[in-house]
Amino acid sequence: MGQAAHLKVKELLDNVAIVLVAPKYPENVGAAARAAMNMGISQIILVRNELPDDERMRKMATHNAGHIIDKIKRYDSVKEAVAPFGWVVGTSARQGRRRVAFNSPRQVMDELLPLIGNNKVALLFGPEDRGLTNEDLQYCNQITTIPTADFSSLNLAQAVAILCHELHFALLNAVATGYTDFVPKQVESRELEATYDRLEQVLRTIGYLKDTDYEYWMNNIRQFFGRVGLRTKEARVIRGLCKQFIWDRAQQRKTATDA
Amino acid sequence: MGQAAHLKVKELLDNVAIVLVAPKYPENVGAAARAAMNMGISQIILVRNELPDDERMRKMATHNAGHIIDKIKRYDSVKEAVAPFGWVVGTSARQGRRRVAFNSPRQVMDELLPLIGNNKVALLFGPEDRGLTNEDLQYCNQITTIPTADFSSLNLAQAVAILCHELHFALLNAVATGYTDFVPKQVESRELEATYDRLEQVLRTIGYLKDTDYEYWMNNIRQFFGRVGLRTKEARVIRGLCKQFIWDRAQQRKTATDA
Repeated sequence: MGQAAHLKVKELLDNVAIVLVAPKYPENVGAAARAAMNMGISQIILVRNELPDDERMRKMATHNAGHIIDKIKRYDSVKEAVAPFGWVVGTSARQGRRRVAFNSPRQVMDELLPLIGNNKVALLFGPEDRGLTNEDLQYCNQITTIPTADFSSLNLAQAVAILCHELHFALLNAVATGYTDFVPKQVESRELEATYDRLEQVLRTIGYLKDTDYEYWMNNIRQFFGRVGLRTKEARVIRGLCKQFIWDRAQQRKTATDA
Repeated sequence: MGQAAHLKVKELLDNVAIVLVAPKYPENVGAAARAAMNMGISQIILVRNELPDDERMRKMATHNAGHIIDKIKRYDSVKEAVAPFGWVVGTSARQGRRRVAFNSPRQVMDELLPLIGNNKVALLFGPEDRGLTNEDLQYCNQITTIPTADFSSLNLAQAVAILCHELHFALLNAVATGYTDFVPKQVESRELEATYDRLEQVLRTIGYLKDTDYEYWMNNIRQFFGRVGLRTKEARVIRGLCKQFIWDRAQQRKTATDA
């Protein structure tokens, strides 16, 4: 593989961040940083009350990944952490009822490839003991499960290593075979959230649903748009329509009252 | 994926062992055991002066992989450790001169698939600081390098996790698509070593090479047969021919002396 291809892979991986949600052990953050760095990914974002103990974190990051530890970003919520990202991949060990919807890392990376050229991509990992919650997964465009043997529990940094390896290798192959068919920029998570807020506002305004049904409906809407992958312009159109609908409705009421 | 396919994958993975050569830190052995277990591989073999500290090893293995720690086997040399294996895959971070000969885990697992039905397979990992030596690699049929970013150094357990994941996923796919085209049993490493000994004996007997050239020639012979993959019967034929040659040569000398 030539120098130009190597540089291209490096450039594309600059669009990728690892988001660790509520990791318990500083050592795991350090080990995850090292795993990511080895695969060319240098952004680590934490959703956590405070930064983990620096010394314990750096011990496992080793000197090699020290510069990644230096620039770790911390947020209070998943919503804030993923706000600037155009594509969010969640990881889940859960199976059972929703099993059929979960894809292997190989599938997910293949689908991710066309997006990575023009979008910031986040790979989201839950805490060591319980993984991502259903609420966390709402922010994800895709959910992936690393296939394991029965009764398994992957170490957090090992899961990060496997996902980053799958992405790195998919990119190496894609770039080596001249793949450049990148799709345009997707809507950022923050705009998508604003769009959901508008849609929920409309649903509530027309009073179509019972109060208890909104969560169910909004989840379906989230899953649909998450999967489809809205572009910035499309999200703006939807928000504009919602706003116009609300305005028009208020006008109608005003007219009715005036009459 | 059905229950029968799951059982088939499990059965095939019983043929696989992780061989850790001179691992320095007991924690890494424990973490590697956990990584292997998660991917359905339960045999860990150590090439090491002594068993690592039990407590430090079990701490990282966690309760889940405790049963794997219980049955760890230890040998003094790579030769003894891989003796019963029919296919040995070595891992190397080295690049440079021999770079072109190293394959990605994806390629290696694809080539490994037909062998795994009827052969014991070993995945060989070197010590944390310096990796496998050229001598260790002599026992390998294939050598693989996990692709990483520049200036990387993979943690031992993370390397084990990535390789085991690649194997596990390749098997899941193969079994799910009904793959059963397994080739016959290959020669075990111990018989292969005996065959190399015989070949070297012949080379030395006829005195064709300078003393310093034997290592070079034997390395070439090893690389050739390692890549080709000898079967038990073929190795037996080669040893028989060598023996006959030596015997016949001695007869000739005797006849000449008698005359």
